[in-house]
Amino acid sequence: MDINAAARHIKKSFGYQFSNLELLDLALTHRSAAKAHNERLEFLGDAVLGMVVAKTLYTRYPNVPEGKLTRMRASLVKGETLAGVAKDAQLGEWLKLGSGELKSGGKRRASILADVTEALFGAIYLDADVDVCERVILKLLESRIAKLDPNAHPKDFKTQLQEFLQSRKQALPHYEIKDIQGKEHDQTFTVACQCAAASEPTIGVGPSRRRAEQHAAQQMLEIINQRAKS
Amino acid sequence: MDINAAARHIKKSFGYQFSNLELLDLALTHRSAAKAHNERLEFLGDAVLGMVVAKTLYTRYPNVPEGKLTRMRASLVKGETLAGVAKDAQLGEWLKLGSGELKSGGKRRASILADVTEALFGAIYLDADVDVCERVILKLLESRIAKLDPNAHPKDFKTQLQEFLQSRKQALPHYEIKDIQGKEHDQTFTVACQCAAASEPTIGVGPSRRRAEQHAAQQMLEIINQRAKS
Repeated sequence: MDINAAARHIKKSFGYQFSNLELLDLALTHRSAAKAHNERLEFLGDAVLGMVVAKTLYTRYPNVPEGKLTRMRASLVKGETLAGVAKDAQLGEWLKLGSGELKSGGKRRASILADVTEALFGAIYLDADVDVCERVILKLLESRIAKLDPNAHPKDFKTQLQEFLQSRKQALPHYEIKDIQGKEHDQTFTVACQCAAASEPTIGVGPSRRRAEQHAAQQMLEIINQRAKS
Repeated sequence: MDINAAARHIKKSFGYQFSNLELLDLALTHRSAAKAHNERLEFLGDAVLGMVVAKTLYTRYPNVPEGKLTRMRASLVKGETLAGVAKDAQLGEWLKLGSGELKSGGKRRASILADVTEALFGAIYLDADVDVCERVILKLLESRIAKLDPNAHPKDFKTQLQEFLQSRKQALPHYEIKDIQGKEHDQTFTVACQCAAASEPTIGVGPSRRRAEQHAAQQMLEIINQRAKS
């Protein structure tokens, strides 16, 4: 990869000209490619992004309570959003990946793309300062911030799981009550959630069948997401 | 509460003189006391704190990998640490609490104290800027940062749960294998964790008894912690 060409691409897509090209190089380097890789910068960038988004939402929505601000922020900083930023900016072509990752389509993998976006934010913060980094972040996220709805309800875990599996054309999950304990009005339900995507069922416990199913679906989502990352 | 006296106390304990006393007042106001309370500032302060700590650790530990930085940060920004900061700064006396909270000892409740610390960080950020806020945060956390050990192993969930219960002189948890499925070398264990602190057992599933117990203990800790917050 020609680092000068990469810097020109970042200037065009992110609107930021790197001074220290080594920092840019580090931000673009996946752990599969070299011992010095972008994970520390990703740690830093995640924190800067979180702060910039928190401050922006706090200021723009003076009457929105904390719970809604937290949800709005989560939708802006989640992997899917950041992978979208990376795709819009066509970062895939500029990544440094190990040969295994390269062959298995790492340039298009959402988790790798999201991580490099955060790493670039961390690198810009170090290369310039927090205000410059804020401007870059806001420019990239502006259209997504404009579309936020403070009153949008987050999708419950069963719905999320169902949509995730449907998007991958996989069979829908199967829920089964494993146990009901306690007397009427004080019962504890144990529900298993089984999925073709996971070899083991997840178990949810709760004071109602619905709550137990939600817990089981939430754990299944975590397992599937962890797998997608690794 | 005399807000001028509060400002003097914050000047002495945090080393920061508020210009906008309304912001200080808001930061000290718990949701039990007024409709305009400190939760939004807490949201902002949490983000500023996260960034300041991330940047500090990134800079001071140039060779520590991301996973360890994440753990070190978590130990600095967790409720227990922030409640400690609030206690050292004797913030309890300056809180605005509703009468119910006041009677039930809200001034000493760790979660309320941790939240007010974050709210003050958010307020200082708005009253001044990120650099000033960084100096205040680092001054308050310096002795705790100095004690950090990048190689400290986080306590596993069973140990955490046991220590938590012991500190409250409660009976130790009871683990019971509920189910083992699958053939040798590919088994799935289901374990229940029962605790006097919770009316229902939690269920953990995993490829070994140990892992299943850890999952069950983790869920029990979450339940107990959620209860402590509400």
